[in-house]
Amino acid sequence: MQTLNVDLGARSYPIHIGSGLIADISLIAPHIKGRQVMIVSNTTVAPLYLDQLKTTLGDQYQVAEVILPDGEAYKTLDSVNLIFNALLENRFNRTCTLIALGGGVIGDMTGFAAASYQRGVNFIQIPTTLLSQVDSSVGGKTGVNHPLGKNMIGAFWQPQLVLADTDTLQTLPDRELAAGIAEVIKYGLIRDADFFSWLESNVQPLKQKNSIALSEAIYRSCQNKAEVVTLDELEGGVRATLNLGHTFGHAIETEQGYGQWLHGEAVATGMFMAADLSGREGWLSQGDVARIKALLEKFDLPIAPPESMTAETFIKHMLVDKKVLDGNLRLVLMTAFGKSVVTEQFSAVNLQQTLAAGKKLGFF
Amino acid sequence: MQTLNVDLGARSYPIHIGSGLIADISLIAPHIKGRQVMIVSNTTVAPLYLDQLKTTLGDQYQVAEVILPDGEAYKTLDSVNLIFNALLENRFNRTCTLIALGGGVIGDMTGFAAASYQRGVNFIQIPTTLLSQVDSSVGGKTGVNHPLGKNMIGAFWQPQLVLADTDTLQTLPDRELAAGIAEVIKYGLIRDADFFSWLESNVQPLKQKNSIALSEAIYRSCQNKAEVVTLDELEGGVRATLNLGHTFGHAIETEQGYGQWLHGEAVATGMFMAADLSGREGWLSQGDVARIKALLEKFDLPIAPPESMTAETFIKHMLVDKKVLDGNLRLVLMTAFGKSVVTEQFSAVNLQQTLAAGKKLGFF
Repeated sequence: MQTLNVDLGARSYPIHIGSGLIADISLIAPHIKGRQVMIVSNTTVAPLYLDQLKTTLGDQYQVAEVILPDGEAYKTLDSVNLIFNALLENRFNRTCTLIALGGGVIGDMTGFAAASYQRGVNFIQIPTTLLSQVDSSVGGKTGVNHPLGKNMIGAFWQPQLVLADTDTLQTLPDRELAAGIAEVIKYGLIRDADFFSWLESNVQPLKQKNSIALSEAIYRSCQNKAEVVTLDELEGGVRATLNLGHTFGHAIETEQGYGQWLHGEAVATGMFMAADLSGREGWLSQGDVARIKALLEKFDLPIAPPESMTAETFIKHMLVDKKVLDGNLRLVLMTAFGKSVVTEQFSAVNLQQTLAAGKKLGFF
Repeated sequence: MQTLNVDLGARSYPIHIGSGLIADISLIAPHIKGRQVMIVSNTTVAPLYLDQLKTTLGDQYQVAEVILPDGEAYKTLDSVNLIFNALLENRFNRTCTLIALGGGVIGDMTGFAAASYQRGVNFIQIPTTLLSQVDSSVGGKTGVNHPLGKNMIGAFWQPQLVLADTDTLQTLPDRELAAGIAEVIKYGLIRDADFFSWLESNVQPLKQKNSIALSEAIYRSCQNKAEVVTLDELEGGVRATLNLGHTFGHAIETEQGYGQWLHGEAVATGMFMAADLSGREGWLSQGDVARIKALLEKFDLPIAPPESMTAETFIKHMLVDKKVLDGNLRLVLMTAFGKSVVTEQFSAVNLQQTLAAGKKLGFF
């Protein structure tokens, strides 16, 4: 087991990464403050791991559960209200603990419920997808979607503990594993060129779900993210680089309707679009961009937006992005291989060419 | 104009108290960060003050508004969602500012919307009732009710500015003024015996809505609350004394249905029940309790629960109160005149007698 401590002063917490962690009460018990525990999971994950977690918790707590439907389409205020109902029907008080058992959607909703129930209660993350293990577990971002925009309602709320049990990845479909790898690659691109090289050398072990390779990928991703978050907890500056590829990616997800493309797939294409634009700006070489394309392709990730999406479609969706400040579009771009910045200093002509490139992305 | 600075480090903010403040852009403009301003008000207050506020803001901002139905019955997640809808339909970004123009219900919902929209945006409170000027404007408590409990969903979120314009109290019905006075008296009871004496000497000017007397009452109430909140921002300890009378009061409101009794009326009776129990415990004299009764009566506040409420009804509602820790009932009680404490150290027999006293409260 590897452990990473996220240093946020009074709100610091550990991330444990490894095999067999859900079965280990000694890791969980120290972070449950009261006697009441509400497990929040979904219809896909609960049949796989809920009983195991309940067995680990034993009978020393008042344990209750909410099982929500699976999928981004259910990441809504209505679903969060189902958690509130369960908490109140079970008379849970403000020293209760919520445990999120599932992927990013469950983590985001459980975290927002924890932030808002009685103005804030404890919560523990047990992410069961690679995407949520490397991304949603660090940074305290919680929330739900609104019909008019993704992640528009939420709070910053830190967990007491994150348990990333790599055993849960053995049941994860290959396509979802690849989507998680997209976010792993992101850390290489925004700030860790060495990690990018390590990934180039470990494509096969990762695709074969080798536990040691996965643990290392999760640890280094969380470490990179934790460093960024520690520098900038409330997202004033450098933290926004974590959104590399997300502005383009959200536009794809919104246009396609959530659930057609996986989030990580949209981010993969979005990162490649950011690389293309960075290349047009002269910050990345043609060789740098080709290297990014090659790694994404080795993990079977998409590297071009849907053919139906025009430059105009992209612009329409990108203008409601959270990074738009008073009407000016800001993007995360790469200023060199393994370095990134949030900027509105790019050529509108270059952006237009990137948005219109389609399958010709990466050739400029 | 009097100004009180609430000292919360990076989240400090001023409270301006006085006449004609809504018309003064120089007080408001420094606290609006971006260019987008959403005013949230209700159908009672908007016709009185919305145009005035919009005139003050002028045409330098993108101003939009949401007018919600008036009343505690509408303090729901659904109403907050109407604010989210308006923000997204108007493409408001994360540098927008929300202004709450109304009483405590509007302030609580606007604050929660501000805490949750894009994980947190700026907000300004312009409370238009005495209750909200002395109470809701300080402390950062925001939120909504749930069918199973009052204020069960919310966040701690500080405003950038509070404007308590005493002119708005001239249109306030007498009964609502009295309900606000109940919270004013509370500060005397929990920590400021001198202020209680000042109130005893100023009953007539306050009932006649004398601006100078009202300003002083608001200032000293906010000062007391701000001192408590500064000591204990996240409500671990002493802050809970601000809930004097609220556990009993919430039980009355819940049993009667929100809206039958005004919140301040329920708190008045609740404070007198706390005084009665404190007397039975031997912490207040018969004379102290009589003095509390006399002041409440001079302001035409109720000093006995509804006849239909039995001790059993009280207990049922009190057990879902936020101050219940793992099943033990904690109450705010007075240990001496002008001093209070949160405690579970009281006699169950005495509590039973207080709950069953009805119109005989205050005689023990």
